[in-house]
Amino acid sequence: MENYEQLIRQLVDAAMAGAGKTGAGCGAGTCADGSDIPVGVSNRHLHLSQQDLNVLFGSGYELTAIKDLGQPGQFACKETLTVCGPKGAIEKVRVLGPVRSRTQVEILAGDGFKLGVKAPVRQSGDLTGTPGVTLVGPKGSVVLTEGTIVAQRHIHMTPAEAERYGVRDGDVVSIDFDTERGGVMRNVLIRATDTSALECHVDTEEANAFGVSSKSHFRIIK
Amino acid sequence: MENYEQLIRQLVDAAMAGAGKTGAGCGAGTCADGSDIPVGVSNRHLHLSQQDLNVLFGSGYELTAIKDLGQPGQFACKETLTVCGPKGAIEKVRVLGPVRSRTQVEILAGDGFKLGVKAPVRQSGDLTGTPGVTLVGPKGSVVLTEGTIVAQRHIHMTPAEAERYGVRDGDVVSIDFDTERGGVMRNVLIRATDTSALECHVDTEEANAFGVSSKSHFRIIK
Repeated sequence: MENYEQLIRQLVDAAMAGAGKTGAGCGAGTCADGSDIPVGVSNRHLHLSQQDLNVLFGSGYELTAIKDLGQPGQFACKETLTVCGPKGAIEKVRVLGPVRSRTQVEILAGDGFKLGVKAPVRQSGDLTGTPGVTLVGPKGSVVLTEGTIVAQRHIHMTPAEAERYGVRDGDVVSIDFDTERGGVMRNVLIRATDTSALECHVDTEEANAFGVSSKSHFRIIK
Repeated sequence: MENYEQLIRQLVDAAMAGAGKTGAGCGAGTCADGSDIPVGVSNRHLHLSQQDLNVLFGSGYELTAIKDLGQPGQFACKETLTVCGPKGAIEKVRVLGPVRSRTQVEILAGDGFKLGVKAPVRQSGDLTGTPGVTLVGPKGSVVLTEGTIVAQRHIHMTPAEAERYGVRDGDVVSIDFDTERGGVMRNVLIRATDTSALECHVDTEEANAFGVSSKSHFRIIK
């Protein structure tokens, strides 16, 4: 019977988290509830292999960085492409660098309707069985057989940070935004690697639906 | 000590509700938890006064219905307009009928960035202090001084249905979507009138962010 009090305390915490009530989560150096984690809002974008970059922009082409992104070594490029599907096209889709081993197109769920492409919600790099699109650049076109996804919302952090938040790489958590249009996003993936910078990535539709910007804060609900 | 079990049960229920687990909410004729309420997904659209309709489409113009909507007497029209703001324009925005006493433009949060218009999240009809846009039609243009909103998500129902769900007109509830991209939307307005048809209205960004379609179901969390 002596464990009841602890059990009840855990259940009260879980119930309050579900109801959007906030506890005092901030200690020395970090907020254990995640309310110190910056939010990054991603619009549609794509990553290119060097092989596809050569076809689209010319042999040996090098990407032109115009803005560093939150994750170390990642940058937005001057270059944009037209993404085409069977039902429509979207112009000026931003290329992110550096080049990767495989080309990956990250669209918004709404883009899928416009393009006529049923892109699944996937983690970056998990492209098996995803649909293709056609990329059109200034020097050529690439017909992809796969590689189009809607990015699963996720939180980048180091393993040390993960320990502080009580999560591990690959965990799936919920996050609670206390905004005017707020609520809880479930199925948020924890991606903990040594080279990560602390940042939660949601896409523009998710940010708009929740009334969230890069200045917003959330709490992690495990 | 004998009340601990009941207390724990209540707390488990509350925690499970927060975590998106579903209980047995359906009795005779209705699901008390709201899981029988149809979802309607609204794209950007606008309602026109007869005065503005005259300017945009010609004096004495009558709207052409092409599709009945969920709410009795409401319909989508053949007519579309261009909506313009200081930073951009959106073409082919659908007009909904019938005409109303005031023109009201309901955009997506993302449209606000494209147009350069800071539209607040508001209930339909609550237009005081909202920004204007310029509407361009085949016969003329209308410069609105106000009337642009992002519609607050809401559930239409009759007062009798509200009683069955244990809510009242004007209440604000949360709704829980158990989808792959699911979660909880807070601040969902209950709109109960005698002429309402049972339907939950979210916009396309909200639907996309939650992976929700007109075939989705949710539970009301009060």
